[in-house]
Amino acid sequence: MIFIIELSGTIAFAISGILEARRQNMDLIGVFTLAFITALGGGTLRDILLNRHPLIWVADPSYALMIFGLSVIGAIIFRGNHFHPAERWIVIPDALGLGLFAATGTAYALNLDISVFVALLLGVITATFGGVLRDLFCAEIPSVFRRTQLYATCAFAASFAYWFIHASGGDHEISTFVSIFVGASLRLLALRFDWRLPI
Amino acid sequence: MIFIIELSGTIAFAISGILEARRQNMDLIGVFTLAFITALGGGTLRDILLNRHPLIWVADPSYALMIFGLSVIGAIIFRGNHFHPAERWIVIPDALGLGLFAATGTAYALNLDISVFVALLLGVITATFGGVLRDLFCAEIPSVFRRTQLYATCAFAASFAYWFIHASGGDHEISTFVSIFVGASLRLLALRFDWRLPI
Amino acid sequence: MIFIIELSGTIAFAISGILEARRQNMDLIGVFTLAFITALGGGTLRDILLNRHPLIWVADPSYALMIFGLSVIGAIIFRGNHFHPAERWIVIPDALGLGLFAATGTAYALNLDISVFVALLLGVITATFGGVLRDLFCAEIPSVFRRTQLYATCAFAASFAYWFIHASGGDHEISTFVSIFVGASLRLLALRFDWRLPI
Repeated sequence: MIFIIELSGTIAFAISGILEARRQNMDLIGVFTLAFITALGGGTLRDILLNRHPLIWVADPSYALMIFGLSVIGAIIFRGNHFHPAERWIVIPDALGLGLFAATGTAYALNLDISVFVALLLGVITATFGGVLRDLFCAEIPSVFRRTQLYATCAFAASFAYWFIHASGGDHEISTFVSIFVGASLRLLALRFDWRLPI
Repeated sequence: MIFIIELSGTIAFAISGILEARRQNMDLIGVFTLAFITALGGGTLRDILLNRHPLIWVADPSYALMIFGLSVIGAIIFRGNHFHPAERWIVIPDALGLGLFAATGTAYALNLDISVFVALLLGVITATFGGVLRDLFCAEIPSVFRRTQLYATCAFAASFAYWFIHASGGDHEISTFVSIFVGASLRLLALRFDWRLPI
Repeated sequence: MIFIIELSGTIAFAISGILEARRQNMDLIGVFTLAFITALGGGTLRDILLNRHPLIWVADPSYALMIFGLSVIGAIIFRGNHFHPAERWIVIPDALGLGLFAATGTAYALNLDISVFVALLLGVITATFGGVLRDLFCAEIPSVFRRTQLYATCAFAASFAYWFIHASGGDHEISTFVSIFVGASLRLLALRFDWRLPI
């Protein structure tokens, strides 16, 4: 179950990179790079900050191969720079991935016995910096810093939920599910009702 | 004394990130991220380049908590995107921080027994790359690369002063004070008389 | 021979950074930073991703000193932001460097016993991310992601050639030469006949 969410979350993140690359009229190289960075950039940055090596995609080639396959298909399917229905299909897997990646990042950080606040930050970085790097590579101000519908806030809530359940005695699996539920439902509510931060 | 300069320098760097985030109309997430990156980005990059772990803000949560507190206050106080008097208040702590962070970076690098020129570069990176990353995250060409009033040059002078006094037999404390004095006074003179690099 | 190609490739990459900095009207600080990042950024990123320390330019100051010398000369010589004949002189050393750096990156990665596809990616990152970072620091979408004349594709071909010859029993030197030949000749052909990726 967690594996399916991780897979669909990674694919959703990669597709968001592919769509952005197409909007910028990039070729296959740009499509693949943006898909890779969006899907794996957050976890890679977390691992570099925490000095965890080898990086997951260095140790296991299936990530890079899957994203390359998706990029070839995406570069053929998605043409033009108009709004694409794929942007709607990926909303739910993207929200699930947001919660899961926040939980994963928080879990790794808590294992290192670092303080709770920093562990929550690393959860947020894991979930959101793929998208931040995607926007940077498009020479745009990262959308997560603008008044979006609570994207990073949902990652923080998911990280907090993971820590709270874990500290209350929940095991990794149950904490992860609560985290995904909190992050994804808050995100979908924020999108539905256009909630944004007041400050 | 050095602790007070470090604290006021870090706060000055964080405020410059907060003001920039507000000028770009970012919400609290963007304000916090930019404050964090501006205040801690230079030291973080230096530590990743030199493979020093754990990172200071991973090991000690007070940095992240202080910057989060500043960001909440800043997001409430600073509204609109006009010029703000805070830009004038931070000139002096910013100049002091510039000198101190250059000294700190140079000192770390010299401890590793690397060559002097590279150690000076790492001092400059420590002092200036927080601001460089802040500008990158705003999709702007880093202001330190334009014809500013000698910002990176002052960091280089401060790094050089640290090394020179240290190599002449001064201890860490006295070298740091000379470095702060050289960096800050050169910066304030450059701002006052609008000095810029000729090439 | 490989040493001469490495030297001329590094210089060509540095000059491309200097020219871009001048086009953006940067001062000596910007010129040096862009030259440094363009020449050494790809290898530095590869080493951080693979956790190889110390970084080459930290261990050996001659890289930083050479690039600093080039930057001072370049900041004096190259003025204005028009097209400059140096852009034509560097085409051939740039193409040779492209092939060599792809080979070097692939070789390092293969030594670590990681999978072939990831090793090829690291070869491409080594050869191309200096230019990607250069463009990012100019707040531009990296040119290698647009429909350029196969830049990253040539790096991939060079990396593939290195692996293929190496896996077929060729030693490091012969594999490197084939890699340079494949990368550089494909790049020069692509420039001559304006080949671009179809998707």
